[in-house]
Amino acid sequence: MKAKVYVTLKQGVLDPQGKAIQHSVELLGYGGIADVRQGKYFEIALDGTLAETEAREAANRMAREVLSNPIIEDYRVEIE
Amino acid sequence: MKAKVYVTLKQGVLDPQGKAIQHSVELLGYGGIADVRQGKYFEIALDGTLAETEAREAANRMAREVLSNPIIEDYRVEIE
Repeated sequence: MKAKVYVTLKQGVLDPQGKAIQHSVELLGYGGIADVRQGKYFEIALDGTLAETEAREAANRMAREVLSNPIIEDYRVEIE
Repeated sequence: MKAKVYVTLKQGVLDPQGKAIQHSVELLGYGGIADVRQGKYFEIALDGTLAETEAREAANRMAREVLSNPIIEDYRVEIE
């Protein structure tokens, strides 16, 4: 089983890294881009000792307590 | 329209950052974790001047040429 955690900056939080990427790709000739925001992505492989509900709960707790900064970031967890 | 790009290290490429996260969460008492790998996640907002097929093609090109290092990384593009 695998948990996928997506961490993104909250709306309204400035993302200078995303802005730098947007500026660079525009210089490289890509058009039609309104905004770029960068986030983080974690793949957590689980060893199968946890049931799906426990795994989901553990992944959510991990995302909230370790992988994201809840002041400025949102997270999303998927279990596969 | 939004393009979401997920960049992950190829299988077999060492991920010291993921290993450090795994070690930390284990010290914090989380169990049942076999492996952690960190990737990158980009949300590209498109301004609507591109049709969906063009947007997909542009996002794929951007992912390949700018957002990932194809030697060590894989990417996946979703258009929403």
